[in-house]
Amino acid sequence: MTVLAGLTELLSDWSTDPVELAQAATDRSGSPDTGIPALLVRARDVAEVQAVARFASAHGVPLVTRGAGSGLAGGAVAGTGTIVLDLSRLDRIIEIRPVDQVAVVEAGVITADVDAAAAAHGLFYAPDPGSVAISTIGGNIATNAGGLRGAKYGVTRDAVLALDVVLADGRLVHLGAGTLKHVAGYDLLGLVVGSEGTLGIVVGATLRLLPRPAATGTVAAYFGSLEDAADAAVAVRSCGARPSVLEIVDGLTLAAIDELSGTDLRQRGEAFLLVQVDGLDVTAELAAVEQAVAGATHVESTLDAVTSERLLAARRLALPAIEARGRALIEDIAVPPARLTDAIRGVQDVAAATGTTIHVFAHAGDGNVHPVIVVDADPGAELPAAAVEAADRIFALALELGGTVTGEHGVGLLKQRWVARQVGPDVDDLQRAVKRLFDPAGVLNPGKAI
Amino acid sequence: MTVLAGLTELLSDWSTDPVELAQAATDRSGSPDTGIPALLVRARDVAEVQAVARFASAHGVPLVTRGAGSGLAGGAVAGTGTIVLDLSRLDRIIEIRPVDQVAVVEAGVITADVDAAAAAHGLFYAPDPGSVAISTIGGNIATNAGGLRGAKYGVTRDAVLALDVVLADGRLVHLGAGTLKHVAGYDLLGLVVGSEGTLGIVVGATLRLLPRPAATGTVAAYFGSLEDAADAAVAVRSCGARPSVLEIVDGLTLAAIDELSGTDLRQRGEAFLLVQVDGLDVTAELAAVEQAVAGATHVESTLDAVTSERLLAARRLALPAIEARGRALIEDIAVPPARLTDAIRGVQDVAAATGTTIHVFAHAGDGNVHPVIVVDADPGAELPAAAVEAADRIFALALELGGTVTGEHGVGLLKQRWVARQVGPDVDDLQRAVKRLFDPAGVLNPGKAI
Repeated sequence: MTVLAGLTELLSDWSTDPVELAQAATDRSGSPDTGIPALLVRARDVAEVQAVARFASAHGVPLVTRGAGSGLAGGAVAGTGTIVLDLSRLDRIIEIRPVDQVAVVEAGVITADVDAAAAAHGLFYAPDPGSVAISTIGGNIATNAGGLRGAKYGVTRDAVLALDVVLADGRLVHLGAGTLKHVAGYDLLGLVVGSEGTLGIVVGATLRLLPRPAATGTVAAYFGSLEDAADAAVAVRSCGARPSVLEIVDGLTLAAIDELSGTDLRQRGEAFLLVQVDGLDVTAELAAVEQAVAGATHVESTLDAVTSERLLAARRLALPAIEARGRALIEDIAVPPARLTDAIRGVQDVAAATGTTIHVFAHAGDGNVHPVIVVDADPGAELPAAAVEAADRIFALALELGGTVTGEHGVGLLKQRWVARQVGPDVDDLQRAVKRLFDPAGVLNPGKAI
Repeated sequence: MTVLAGLTELLSDWSTDPVELAQAATDRSGSPDTGIPALLVRARDVAEVQAVARFASAHGVPLVTRGAGSGLAGGAVAGTGTIVLDLSRLDRIIEIRPVDQVAVVEAGVITADVDAAAAAHGLFYAPDPGSVAISTIGGNIATNAGGLRGAKYGVTRDAVLALDVVLADGRLVHLGAGTLKHVAGYDLLGLVVGSEGTLGIVVGATLRLLPRPAATGTVAAYFGSLEDAADAAVAVRSCGARPSVLEIVDGLTLAAIDELSGTDLRQRGEAFLLVQVDGLDVTAELAAVEQAVAGATHVESTLDAVTSERLLAARRLALPAIEARGRALIEDIAVPPARLTDAIRGVQDVAAATGTTIHVFAHAGDGNVHPVIVVDADPGAELPAAAVEAADRIFALALELGGTVTGEHGVGLLKQRWVARQVGPDVDDLQRAVKRLFDPAGVLNPGKAI
């Protein structure tokens, strides 16, 4: 496209190489390809981001911003004719302010690197999406990513104090405040978090840090049935401890982990519950958790960090183990915690009804269930009809149980129809009006998020 | 106004009595009167709220929604010709769902009543604005109210999972989800929280509850100087404990408390630091806090609930004690925690420069400072020029220190000019556009919040 020459002359690093463009058009969602972008821009500074946004709005060219491309809902999938704006080189940690307990970072910083920099000051960055070692802060903000520690520490939104955002027309604005709380004007910051690059381009963030917990206690418990494990999760939530991690893994997934790593976890039970508590001294909380899981068939409990990490490893292996079995479509429903068993049983019914294989693990503390549909199809290829049918039934199940079609991965390309159904026509209209307000030309990641 | 007859015939409880109208036109901000409203409506149900909103939009009549009238920034001040919509009778706690750990309530419920209902299930409602015994959940949501426990538990926004909102045109929408987290679409819920009734009318809320802490530990420490107290606050924040309460009270306020209650707190030091920790077992956290305040001139520490409450009483008396000395203008700046001493010293300088009396207490854990200007003027009367000058200098100080002109009380009538300066023209424009989108007729609490 010759019109793009007007843009590229302003930039330091861009590409129209078909291989690079194809790579920059996908993420980890398993979404079918939607074409080849026109241009890949690797931004070197905020001024380049502003130039790209200004150009896109002026010429009506769709603009898809991406970080590490680790998204699970297709939010960074880019189609024919788009500009892909890669922010992964905006990767500076600008400062850690230990007394304020904040980090000021660029959007392209890998999330785990923020935590590592905080650790040098005895602090930590609480949100820990499964992708923490590969995803960027900007991507986490775009999807309002959750993670294992959400039961106690919440989601990315809870850790974001301020944002630098490039608007669709290229203006740079600062949202939020440099303080731990503020109510000066509307919460536009919260509006941008989770908006998947459709309202603006996040280029920098001020993040809240917390004192790094001195002690961690972990309980790994196996149960004779899924119901027993879910009941134990309820008991843990009301035992007086405030678990930082409260995870359920189903038997099918335990078998996959065994297959990958040569363990024999599946023999220990039908379902696995992993609980972690953290703080200055967790002895009492650990004892309360042990009592809450007393109905388990097999329990390990530890205050030792190395043993904790080993117990957590089983949960961390869940996704790689499933992915070793085929192309994985990772769904992300959330339900009120009291409906957790209904949700997992419902997913198992969907698998039976559609003839698909669906593994389940869940952030039980949040009622956030990840059904993973394993399909026999190449990456980028069309999905088998049975898998699509299963996904649709899972979304319907979530709404039927009073839940949401996405707890922490985002809407992306895959769930728009369902989100509109979830929120209803009036809210859908409001969302579209907000989108038009922020992006009159409709160029920012069009067709995503809402 | 005869046009209002078309509305009142739809309503069950309304008044045009001048005394009732005058009462319904004010709040606790000490804002000067802006006239007498045209109509007071006490809504009996959501349908009446919808009727009022529809009427106001159709006829261009300004509509000011109020709960208990306990606001401190003039958000519920209503001027000539307005309809005042009182939601305090929408006061049902619809349900407590113990397994989900949520409460579903109407907007007019008194905040302390939610906590009391939660307590029956071993749960608690964490946000605790100073007004908790008199303010409503709807009012807390309108201002995104903070409170003493914000250091650990955050603000009202952090406890709101879903809202029922009547839009300007009378439509009722449900924002958020019935789950502990979700990312389905834009965070319109967060936009409404803190918007002071300018974007919609909150009629109901789903609130997050937490397990009620089994143990509470409290440390009350007096220091020879403000600097020592502020240094101790920093030490407490990094000692490994996660204090739920971390408050500073200045010497002037201690003297006022002594005057009110016959104590001799002021003799103990120049500044008072109150720290509370809570959880299943707080022995270790209490010991860490004791160590962090080792530089104090006088320390009391307790694990006993009754003694805790007695120690907290000094802090709770701060505002009544100041109010006993004259009309109190309660300011509400927040700064990065590292600038806390600069903020309090700065306020003292403002008092000296303007010849005003300014007491200071602060949520030190949040960097949220409440300078209270005591003025010699009747409620509702114009403020002395020196007090207005002092307030303006305090706002300027907040911005100079990288802070905000309001941490938790809201913008209301008093700080609009300053909020525009804080956020800058681009964000101010965006906010105004959001306002127009939600309220095209401009009738919802016009002139507030932004």
